[in-house]
Amino acid sequence: MRIDLYITPNEISDTALANRTAVVIDALRASTTLVTALDNGCREVIPVETVERAMAARKRLGPQGVLLCGERGGGKIQGFDLGNSPGEYLPGIVSGKTLVFTSTNGSRALTLIRGCRLGLVGAFINAGAVTRRALAEQADVSILCSGRENVLSIEDLACGGLMVSRLLKADPGMELNDAARTAWILYEHHAHDILGLLRTSDHGRHLVQIGFGDDLPLCAETDATEVVPVIGDGKVVKE
Amino acid sequence: MRIDLYITPNEISDTALANRTAVVIDALRASTTLVTALDNGCREVIPVETVERAMAARKRLGPQGVLLCGERGGGKIQGFDLGNSPGEYLPGIVSGKTLVFTSTNGSRALTLIRGCRLGLVGAFINAGAVTRRALAEQADVSILCSGRENVLSIEDLACGGLMVSRLLKADPGMELNDAARTAWILYEHHAHDILGLLRTSDHGRHLVQIGFGDDLPLCAETDATEVVPVIGDGKVVKE
Repeated sequence: MRIDLYITPNEISDTALANRTAVVIDALRASTTLVTALDNGCREVIPVETVERAMAARKRLGPQGVLLCGERGGGKIQGFDLGNSPGEYLPGIVSGKTLVFTSTNGSRALTLIRGCRLGLVGAFINAGAVTRRALAEQADVSILCSGRENVLSIEDLACGGLMVSRLLKADPGMELNDAARTAWILYEHHAHDILGLLRTSDHGRHLVQIGFGDDLPLCAETDATEVVPVIGDGKVVKE
Repeated sequence: MRIDLYITPNEISDTALANRTAVVIDALRASTTLVTALDNGCREVIPVETVERAMAARKRLGPQGVLLCGERGGGKIQGFDLGNSPGEYLPGIVSGKTLVFTSTNGSRALTLIRGCRLGLVGAFINAGAVTRRALAEQADVSILCSGRENVLSIEDLACGGLMVSRLLKADPGMELNDAARTAWILYEHHAHDILGLLRTSDHGRHLVQIGFGDDLPLCAETDATEVVPVIGDGKVVKE
């Protein structure tokens, strides 16, 4: 088995995901938020790239049982029901609902998942479950970091590195591309303090500045859930 | 002072280099080759993006004292005088000459250097000299890794990390972006065996496969020279 990691969606070619298990990561915060929403009973998540498409999706689906969710510049979008804090996605709010979700970086990576054999959403909180699912699939793995406006995000890379570390524990003979090796070294260096890594990351510092510091511990909690979100047909659902 | 590192030229915005010292790295092999050529007395290097532009430049400059240099797919280009092995650029061959240079990844990064205060070419072999020059300039530093066809190259990142490490030794208070922090951690992890890192890198393994394994020790020799190549007016010259 091979593991290829990509630092930003820009690095992915059209054929990169063929016959592979693809794992999309936006650890701060989109993938953590989606995993949390599915863990708390939401029916499905429809990722869209723009606010306009989110509005159009709600019009198409009708207002019943549909929530508009996401962020721009980190903050809630006018007219939306929920922002991008995992703590907002409580069972009483999201259970049974369809979420239309757009975020600056994560939803773009989610919409790029095409042509893979299996598409998963990964975060620190479900890293173990995602890794076990990928191993069961027995296909080469592509880890797609969302990054931040097309630049490396250290938290996505470390989260990818955690998955590389777990996959290597199951099969030490796996081949890694340069980025997967880098992610693995980064994760092993920071494994003892993921919350510290998030707090000192470019994105984490921005979130603290704009008042979302409480989201960081929620995003740092490794293996908090067994939820494995699967991407397919333009939707993300709990497997 | 700030240090911002970029994994590939794709990450660089038009304004990213304003008022900054920019360091272009293509450790395997373009930047090592250019530093070696200047160390061995070549007059100037003209980086161009395509083989066609290289041919046009020789036509414009005339054949006297001009060498066509570079690679495609790692190998020498038909009709060119030299490939991209640092060992080819001997004093007897390059002394006093103008080199027109094109390579798959490095020359693209070199031609992107625009609007910076000072543009330098960095490699393992001149890392110390480049770092001292950047410190003397007292401007924020942008480290531009060439990568490999728009994907992270672990050897460029480690070479950038070596420069981050040296800059931090001079001023531990420097701020780093996520990529610069990642590069620093990667370098510190591999500092004891740069040649081993090159040999196991995606690009290094490719070079060994196509018969250029002897180039790797030449590219791995940290601080072998004091040459600081400066980029300006479409040329690279020894400062």
